[in-house]
Amino acid sequence: MKEGSRKHGMLAPCAACKLLRRRCAPDCVFAPYFPANEPQKFASVHKVFGASNVNKMLQELPEHQRSDAVSSMVYEANARVRDPVYGCVGAISLLQQQIDSLQTQLAMAQAEALHIKSNHQFNTAASSQRPASSSSPDHRGNEADSLWFY
Amino acid sequence: MKEGSRKHGMLAPCAACKLLRRRCAPDCVFAPYFPANEPQKFASVHKVFGASNVNKMLQELPEHQRSDAVSSMVYEANARVRDPVYGCVGAISLLQQQIDSLQTQLAMAQAEALHIKSNHQFNTAASSQRPASSSSPDHRGNEADSLWFY
Repeated sequence: MKEGSRKHGMLAPCAACKLLRRRCAPDCVFAPYFPANEPQKFASVHKVFGASNVNKMLQELPEHQRSDAVSSMVYEANARVRDPVYGCVGAISLLQQQIDSLQTQLAMAQAEALHIKSNHQFNTAASSQRPASSSSPDHRGNEADSLWFY
Repeated sequence: MKEGSRKHGMLAPCAACKLLRRRCAPDCVFAPYFPANEPQKFASVHKVFGASNVNKMLQELPEHQRSDAVSSMVYEANARVRDPVYGCVGAISLLQQQIDSLQTQLAMAQAEALHIKSNHQFNTAASSQRPASSSSPDHRGNEADSLWFY
């Protein structure tokens, strides 16, 4: 509906064509992903990747993958605008540090659980042997009786 | 030394100038980060970001940050070449899934440790009360004696 109206020249050109100051053709590769009301999306990818590269990358993909590709490019471009030195790679580095920390915490928690469990088993075994040892005096008593008998 | 030799035209132009087929000036912004013997590094960033954008991004950074910026751009570009739909963002998504899974495992391991600990404390408390209850038959015996006495 929106696309149909755009084709009849009733809506503004897409954000990309507006920024690039060119006519927004009915088959514009940017139009479905860069609507006029979200100019910042295209501004970021244009600044980081360049309109020509974004165009080329979209053309090389089948249509059903273009929306995801645009989303990931916008995310990547925004990360690079926020952090011009590390961009997305800064986020990857932080996530990897978080994974290292979680793996250490998990190993510690598992070791603690194992330690408590083995302590618990040891104590259970020790306490289950207590009645047997308390009956031993009687047994020793019988032995003593036997010895006395001989 | 290498840079000095390059200035005297004794070495090949940097990988960027070679790919762009232009003269490698002594103050070439690419030369320190894209040596002639690693042509793939520049080919990737050129394909994804475009030489002009890489140039602009480097010029906007102080020199001591440019090496890190180039490394992160090369990493990002290689990720986009390998995965044209998700690029680096695919890696971020996988890392976030791994974090979610580790957080779940950690919560389970901590809950298990807590469960074993509270079970252990309960059993310890119960077994510490056992001697008192085992002495009760004697006590009952005394009671019986007392009753008998009456």
